[in-house]
Formats: sequence, C-alpha cells, structure tokens
Amino acid sequence: MTVAKEDVRSLAETAKAASRVLAIAPTEQKDAALRSMARHLRAAAPALLAANAEDVAAARAAGKNAAFVDRLLLDASRLEAMARAVEAVADLKDPVGEVTEHWKRPNGLQVSKVRLPLGVVLMIYESRPNVTSDAAALCLKSGNAVLLRGGSESARSNQAISAALSTGLREAGLPERCVQVVPAGEHESLLELLKLEGLIDLCIPRGGEGLIRFVAENARIPVVKHYKGVCHVYVHEAADLDMATRITVNAKASRPGVCNAAECLLVDRAVAERFLPEVGRALADKKVELRGCPTAVAVLSRAGVPVKPAAEDDFGREFLDLILAVRVVKDVDAALAHIARYGSEHTEAIVTQDKEVAARFTREVTASGVMWNASTRFNDGGELGLGAEIGISTSRLHAFGPMGLRELTSQKYVVHGRGQVR
Amino acid sequence: MTVAKEDVRSLAETAKAASRVLAIAPTEQKDAALRSMARHLRAAAPALLAANAEDVAAARAAGKNAAFVDRLLLDASRLEAMARAVEAVADLKDPVGEVTEHWKRPNGLQVSKVRLPLGVVLMIYESRPNVTSDAAALCLKSGNAVLLRGGSESARSNQAISAALSTGLREAGLPERCVQVVPAGEHESLLELLKLEGLIDLCIPRGGEGLIRFVAENARIPVVKHYKGVCHVYVHEAADLDMATRITVNAKASRPGVCNAAECLLVDRAVAERFLPEVGRALADKKVELRGCPTAVAVLSRAGVPVKPAAEDDFGREFLDLILAVRVVKDVDAALAHIARYGSEHTEAIVTQDKEVAARFTREVTASGVMWNASTRFNDGGELGLGAEIGISTSRLHAFGPMGLRELTSQKYVVHGRGQVR
Repeated sequence: MTVAKEDVRSLAETAKAASRVLAIAPTEQKDAALRSMARHLRAAAPALLAANAEDVAAARAAGKNAAFVDRLLLDASRLEAMARAVEAVADLKDPVGEVTEHWKRPNGLQVSKVRLPLGVVLMIYESRPNVTSDAAALCLKSGNAVLLRGGSESARSNQAISAALSTGLREAGLPERCVQVVPAGEHESLLELLKLEGLIDLCIPRGGEGLIRFVAENARIPVVKHYKGVCHVYVHEAADLDMATRITVNAKASRPGVCNAAECLLVDRAVAERFLPEVGRALADKKVELRGCPTAVAVLSRAGVPVKPAAEDDFGREFLDLILAVRVVKDVDAALAHIARYGSEHTEAIVTQDKEVAARFTREVTASGVMWNASTRFNDGGELGLGAEIGISTSRLHAFGPMGLRELTSQKYVVHGRGQVR
Repeated sequence: MTVAKEDVRSLAETAKAASRVLAIAPTEQKDAALRSMARHLRAAAPALLAANAEDVAAARAAGKNAAFVDRLLLDASRLEAMARAVEAVADLKDPVGEVTEHWKRPNGLQVSKVRLPLGVVLMIYESRPNVTSDAAALCLKSGNAVLLRGGSESARSNQAISAALSTGLREAGLPERCVQVVPAGEHESLLELLKLEGLIDLCIPRGGEGLIRFVAENARIPVVKHYKGVCHVYVHEAADLDMATRITVNAKASRPGVCNAAECLLVDRAVAERFLPEVGRALADKKVELRGCPTAVAVLSRAGVPVKPAAEDDFGREFLDLILAVRVVKDVDAALAHIARYGSEHTEAIVTQDKEVAARFTREVTASGVMWNASTRFNDGGELGLGAEIGISTSRLHAFGPMGLRELTSQKYVVHGRGQVR
C-alpha cells in the first residue's frame, strides 16, 4: 500500500477533527465503545486470525527467527487476552475532567487544575499486534485520537484489528477516525508524519534503538521516548543476602528480554565473599552467564561458579538475554557513581536493611523507577497499579516511567470568579 | 564574541555535570545561593548599570523604537526589583523531593511519586534582561542547571548579571556552571544547541513568532513553547452585564501588549443591543479601537460608538495593541465553535450567571486557562499563586499554562518493598 504525502497530512487532519469530538465525549460513551470494540475483536476472530496467518507465513518465508515469529503470532487465546485488555480499560477511571488540585486565592478566585486529553497521539511500534488494540484502548479512554503505525511485518494483522475497532467505535456513535492504522513500511510517510506539528500532539516510539533514534532525529512533533533499560541491582553491605539473591535472580531471569530486567549486579566489597557464591549458584541454576570484574571473577572462581571476565562494554550494555555483568564496588558512593555513568535512567534497585543508605540511594539516583528491597521487574504500569500502560518513558519531560491513562492527559487551569479584574 | 561548535557542546557538558551536583543539593544550600545572588546583583549595580547603558546606547544608535529601548533599560529600581524577585524564589517551597502521591499495592509494595529536576534547561529569550535573573533563580531552586540565551541587544547586560549570579553560586559552594549565559546573536551556535539531545533536557523559547518557529523547526531537544495568546471574552446572554463590561475592559485595556490580554469579544445576540453600546463606550474611553462583524457594526453605530468593520483576518489575530475584534454570535455553540477555530489555546473567558453553561464552557474549551466571571489577565503564575513563572506554556505536553517551580520538575516512582519479586 502506498501513501502520498498529502494523504498522510489528511489522515492526521481527520484524526485532529475526531479528537475534538472525542475530547468531550462522556465517559459512558467511551466505555460503551471499548466494550463494543472488544466484542468485535472476538467476532472478527476468523478473519483476524487468517490475516495474522498471512503475516506469519510471510515472516517465516522471509527467514525471520522463532522469537520474531512468536511476537507476531496470534491465536485464539492471545486474541481473547487482547479483547479482555480492552474491556479492562473500560473499567479504569476516566482521567478526563479529573480535578487534581483546587485552591482559593486571597482575591476570592477559585483555581482548579483539570485534566484534558493531549489531542492526537502517534504510536510507532514494531511487530506485536496486541499493541494495536492496547494503545487504541488507552488513547480512546483518555480522550485522544490515535494514529497507529506498526511494523510492516504485522500490517495485515493490524488492518484487521483496526477494522474490528472501527466497528466498535461506530456502534457507540464515536468517529471511526479516533483510531486509525497508518500503512507501515514506508519511510517517506513516517518522515512526513513526524513533521506534522500542530496536528500530532505526541509521538510515542516503542522499539529498538534504531527506530527510536530515527524518530528522535527527524521529529518536529513532541516525542516521549520508550528507550532501553540498563538496570542495576545494588547489594549493599547491610543487605539481607537471601533477599538479595531472590531479587537478583528475579530481576535477571524471570523475563530477560524486557526493559525492566536487570543487566548488572553491583555488590559491596564487604559482602562479596559471602554473597557472590550464593547468588552465582542460583543464577547458574537459571542458566545465567556471568561476566565479572576481576574481583568478582576471583571470588566466583574460588567458589567454583562459572564466570567470564567482563569486557569494558559489558557495563552499560542491555543484554536482553540470560547474561549478567557483575562488579564488586567499594561502597554506596562507588555504586552511585557506576549507576550515574552506566545506567539508562530506567530502573535501579538497592537491597539493604539500612534505612539511611536506602534514603540516600532513592534520593540520588535518577531513574524512572527506584526500588528498595524489591525487584526491578516491578517498574511496570500494571504492577504499580496504573491499570495498564502504553509504555515506559525514559524521557523526563511530561512523563517518566510507566505511562498510564493519566500520563496521556494534560491539565488546564479553570478559574471561577465573581467578576474579579486586575 | 564568537563560539565554535565544540565550545557550545562543551558548555552544555559543563552544565550537565553541574546539574548532577545541583540535583541533590540541599534546599538550604540552594536558598543560600539565591540570597547571595540577590546580594551580588545589588553590589554589582555600578558595573551592571554601566553595561546596560552600553546596550541601551547601541540600541538607540541602531534606531530601535522607544518600546524596545524601554524593555531593555535597567535602572536602580528595576535592578532592585530583580534582586527581590530572586529572594522571593528562595522563599518558595522546594519542589525537589516532594512526594506527590503515595499508595500501597496488594503485595505490600509502597509506591511513591517523588519530584526530581529535569536536568539542564535552555532558555531562549529576547530583550528583557530581568529574564536572565528570573529564569536563573527558578531553575536553580528547582535543581536544574540553566543555559541562558538572551538577545544580542542585551548581551552586555546579561553578561554582567550572570557574573553577579556566578559569584553568588560560588559563595554558597555550588558549581558556577549551574547558571551560564550563552553568547547571543550567533545563529550557528543556537542551531548547535538545539541539537544537543541528551545534554539539554528542555528548551523554553519565549519571544516572537519567528523565534518560536525557528526553535520548533530545528530542535531535536524537547521544547515547551511559549507562544501567542489570541484570547476571547464571551459574554453569554445570562451575564451580569456590568460585570461583563468590567471584565472586557480589564482584559483588553489593562495591559494590551501581553499574551493574556483579550483580542476578541464574543457577544450573544440576545444581549447585543443592551451590552454592546455600554461596553463600547467604556472601551472608547480607554482608546480601544473596535473592529466588528456586520451586526456589531450596526448595533454600535446606531449607539454612536466608533467602530470599523472587521476584516476576516482580524479574527484569530494577536493585536497586542488597543484594538479589539467584536463578533455577535447566536449562542454558546457558536461561541465555542469560534473559539475552537480562532483561539490559540492560551486563555478563554466566559461571563455568565448560568452555572450549566459555565460548566459546559470550562469543560469544552481547550485552553491553558479557562476563566468564568474573571479577567483573562489572571492566567499568570503570580496571579494563580504559583509564586513565580518562567513563562506560559501553550503546548499541552509536560506543562500547559503558567510554569512555576513544579513545572520545572519531573517525577520518579520510588518503590519500597520487603523482598518482593514477580
């Protein structure tokens, strides 16, 4: 499918027009649309799974690996999960119209801060088709029109999902243009979209480093990046070492391919001899490869735990795999310095029973999530109680960390007077 | 003064390094620095006023008009006001470390949202030298290093102000590089600054349309625009008409050159015959030129109030002068449609005694400030109680409306567990 430059602009213009209607739609109407969208996702199962099977066949024919194909693949249970996720968003509180603060001025003016939608959101993502319905649901509930630009490998799936969502919108009396799939795969049309200042209010790129960099370098529209996670677990000398082992193993091995997985373990020198053999064996049981600094290599080797020497670029690296860099540090100062240098401001954890050290760590570390005696894996919208997330922002502007419905809104000042003038 | 490309980058690198120190500086140290900065502004009066006199002489020699020269001019009382404004920021609450929300998850995790600085702020502005000390004070208190890029016409003044501020920082033991003036007037160096992604966390342009557009088109760093205000006063048929006159006159004539001044009056047809002559005479007393739609022209002319026919582009225009466009509208729907088409999302006001209509207006209007029975002029950080403002954002992302200390921060999730894993 080919899209001319003018078509991209007109797509965004229709989204802007739809966003004006959606911005003031009542909660009940948005929720009815979400439930109807879920129903139509289920009803469209035959056509949708057939479209997905074509995408999967094309990916296999193109020699894509098993992990890639698995991300792309839909089946009956995954489709049901998508429908349920859309319904779950209907159950969340509508952020639009929420009064977040209220105060009175000495001259009697009543000032409120009230949430309103951002306008039009452009979501740029890669292969997973469930992002199409997840992002559509979150944007709809928060009153934003959305342009969905998935990967070309999932184009047929995304069109089929989008058709089901459109039917749901129509049934609830909302403009179909609130949710639109942008044809994928064309560099030109993406470039054009990224320049539509005034029509697109926020761009959220989710994907690999190349995609994020391309968007950041070419966008004239506001971008909230969802970038890599180089997360550390720092085991302080006053840690409960059993807890530290549990947290480290969970942070690294429970799902190594995600951005809140740990990539590096920092251990205070004072407890390295006691802790490293223990955690090393637990990690080895989970097939985690360790890459240590010279001290870590010495300690682990003496204990008979397999370890390789870390290369300098193993620190600060997002392995997204069962590999963990390990460094022994002198103290909390050295740990903080290491994290400031190598961390990606995504998620950082400290394990300690010392409240003062924990307070210092949580205060001084710049990261969207700072964990004290908890796994890095908790830096996630669902786990933190946001209900659902459209991604995890690694930019400090607008939103930092998991973005839920509220993070898809802005706030205006509403002032109520009795004729006051300046 | 000439700055090479590498120098601009190294300037930003020193700002980034300084921002790391400042981010965790105690409130007392930041406040001591602010008070010391104010003292040194006063102490530097002779040198500072001499530098300003050179800027003023150069502006006069270049044939700049009186308004321009007045914006540039410093005297003893303006300098004292600058010093007091810096001290006033020391008296404001430190936003850094503020816990804005706290909740507990079913698994026992304690989740907090905690404010942290943005990092490095690049302020781009035009002639007023007081912006240099105001922006420096607000950024310092909110833990952000700042790069100040004022207009070339105020370069000598800004350097002198910056020297005084540096002395204050040094005295309080904070890095001088927390506040740096970037040499003005070079297109090249500005372009380079706008590309320093990862080093500059936020760019705030304040100034004319040309400046804002240049920044928006060339920036790869996040920008929060402080753009024009095309503000409306809508007088609903159920308005208290005396109140409506007071508000209209204040909104237009109290300070016509600012962005929260009204540029257009919308009047319900049902009250046009009663209201327009009254408000027309009051505006004429303040030397306001009226440019009306055909109905407004007819009504005002019959009442003997001077009025010109409005050109189509008088609607949606930011006059920044004693000129007001006037349109008679059928009802609140027509008023909302006019505002959606011609407004700039800055400030919109309704005058009415009807609560339901007011509720609809405040809900449906997209603007950073929506006023019910109050002047548009109240959409201002000081007036709303933010203490001080670095500007008024007209972008919905990150901050919308007056930006105070809080709007110069982000928030991180801090999670406290007892060894929880997923």
